Amino acid sequence: MNIYDVSKRAGVSIATVSRVLNGNPNVSEKTRTKVHTVMDELGYTPNVFARGLGLGTMKTIGIMCSDSSDPYLANAIYYLEQQLRGNGYDSILCCTGPSLENKKTYFELLLSKKVDAVILAGSKFVELIDKDNRYLMDAAKELPVMLVNGFLDAPGIYSTVCNDYEAMYHVARRLIESGRKHILYLYTSHSYSGLNKVEGYKKALADHNIPVRREYIHQCAKNLTDSRKLMEELADSGLVFDAVMTSDDSLAVGAVKFAYERNISVPEELAIVGYNNSLLSYCTNPEISSVDTKIRELCTTTVDTLMSVFAGGSVPTKTVIAADFIQKQTTNF
Amino acid sequence: MNIYDVSKRAGVSIATVSRVLNGNPNVSEKTRTKVHTVMDELGYTPNVFARGLGLGTMKTIGIMCSDSSDPYLANAIYYLEQQLRGNGYDSILCCTGPSLENKKTYFELLLSKKVDAVILAGSKFVELIDKDNRYLMDAAKELPVMLVNGFLDAPGIYSTVCNDYEAMYHVARRLIESGRKHILYLYTSHSYSGLNKVEGYKKALADHNIPVRREYIHQCAKNLTDSRKLMEELADSGLVFDAVMTSDDSLAVGAVKFAYERNISVPEELAIVGYNNSLLSYCTNPEISSVDTKIRELCTTTVDTLMSVFAGGSVPTKTVIAADFIQKQTTNF
Repeated sequence: MNIYDVSKRAGVSIATVSRVLNGNPNVSEKTRTKVHTVMDELGYTPNVFARGLGLGTMKTIGIMCSDSSDPYLANAIYYLEQQLRGNGYDSILCCTGPSLENKKTYFELLLSKKVDAVILAGSKFVELIDKDNRYLMDAAKELPVMLVNGFLDAPGIYSTVCNDYEAMYHVARRLIESGRKHILYLYTSHSYSGLNKVEGYKKALADHNIPVRREYIHQCAKNLTDSRKLMEELADSGLVFDAVMTSDDSLAVGAVKFAYERNISVPEELAIVGYNNSLLSYCTNPEISSVDTKIRELCTTTVDTLMSVFAGGSVPTKTVIAADFIQKQTTNF
Repeated sequence: MNIYDVSKRAGVSIATVSRVLNGNPNVSEKTRTKVHTVMDELGYTPNVFARGLGLGTMKTIGIMCSDSSDPYLANAIYYLEQQLRGNGYDSILCCTGPSLENKKTYFELLLSKKVDAVILAGSKFVELIDKDNRYLMDAAKELPVMLVNGFLDAPGIYSTVCNDYEAMYHVARRLIESGRKHILYLYTSHSYSGLNKVEGYKKALADHNIPVRREYIHQCAKNLTDSRKLMEELADSGLVFDAVMTSDDSLAVGAVKFAYERNISVPEELAIVGYNNSLLSYCTNPEISSVDTKIRELCTTTVDTLMSVFAGGSVPTKTVIAADFIQKQTTNF
């Protein structure tokens, strides 16, 4: 028994039911009566979206992230906590690690704490196999589930994503148009965001009639040495490349180290592009051109959206935010 | 009315009262009766340390940090949350920012949530003026207050600190003994930890009959450009230096950038030492020698100590953990 059943039986939208529950005046008396009648018939006790408004609510939001010591996610937690606090909500934090089993356990734990909503920070929470996302879709029938830079198409799930595909397409296009012919692509993960990124790269190549070749696309661990070692191996094996795009700044740092050791001039002989425009991209000499993925804006929008859901407003299930390319010293287009 | 009053009146230690409250069998029947009699006389309701054991507890710990997007504090939050979770506790996170007023507000907020304890992550929570720490000392009469890399001497406050003084003394000593004569010292904050660090530097100089000179000690903002600009100004003003010690890796990154721009060879002409041994110290060329401040161990010990407090065990109020110097490429001693 949930708000969807009420909405269906009453023949009104979920937003309308929510408005009625929240005492929002923008509902006709007729509709209000209808909804209340249906709720009585179904024996429905409002305890879901209405919770967020102080009706027996804990005013607490669960935040899950796979690893809060990752600089990108650390920033996300910071902005989410600040923004929730500004709206009068506490944040219970869960660092889940990468395993699906742990994610499920922590998610259940948050539900058992009667949190008003759960925010999943980072794209690691959208699994590749549909049935592995079932637990999120089921839970979203009972309380809002917010994804920060992940997307799942299901009722009650609200996604705020950065346009990683466009960002990577843009970077690859500019590299190609400035004369780069052999662009290496290094990535860390097959997450929702990870897949969008590589698709942007592939599409830009295809649009410029450059064949997408397997030997130019490689997965690395997310640390400062793996990408360096990989590039050494690739160079030693005779692979020719004049640019490298990465899915994370840490990999781009490895690329700078590779170039330094091999006396390869950057960006003249090798262009390097990072991702997330983190502190790391400012530490190296030369500083790394990178993509600002607007994590602050993503978090602010996520919390704004959640507050609109609580208020029973009309809320988009997916909000897309554009990334910015930040030209520094490792590119010259 | 609190556990200290009971302890005093019954003529037993707080740990013993706690054991009685927790039903710990290692208490004589006589003592148990005594404690219960005193509690009845005083009208004391156990709701403080006993909370942690599940007697009406929320099993929730408040974590306060001044800025969770700082890499050091982001790691602290990660380890604290993991360790608390492993002991069955939730973490409510508050990012307070630097102002004392906000710290107090958030602290009150956590108390109003009936958390079982509060952990203050980072040395920014110990104020220089004693009366500004009053709110923590008062609260510590009611629930355990845990400091991660900060120290306050008051009942109910438990500190786990890194030996910053020793670490800085060690670095300065080795620089001096390897022939460095003019050691610049750059720092970001006058926090508890910050003051200990600079004292270590000063003592090493004094022990080697090197005068401590004001013009060699400077404060910078904690970012990647301030220390670079400051060193440019100092060099341009004619100040001679052959080594720079910093209170944070971010300042050391600026020092590497300064050396790079001025064609100063590192470490031959300029030795550079960072602090915290963060990811940043591995990003530069050359990689920055730094001090590993054992944040993981600090957090693990903090949570272990808290669990001992809850269990009514005998608990040291201050635990000191030794730092490690990590030699990389910006020093050659």
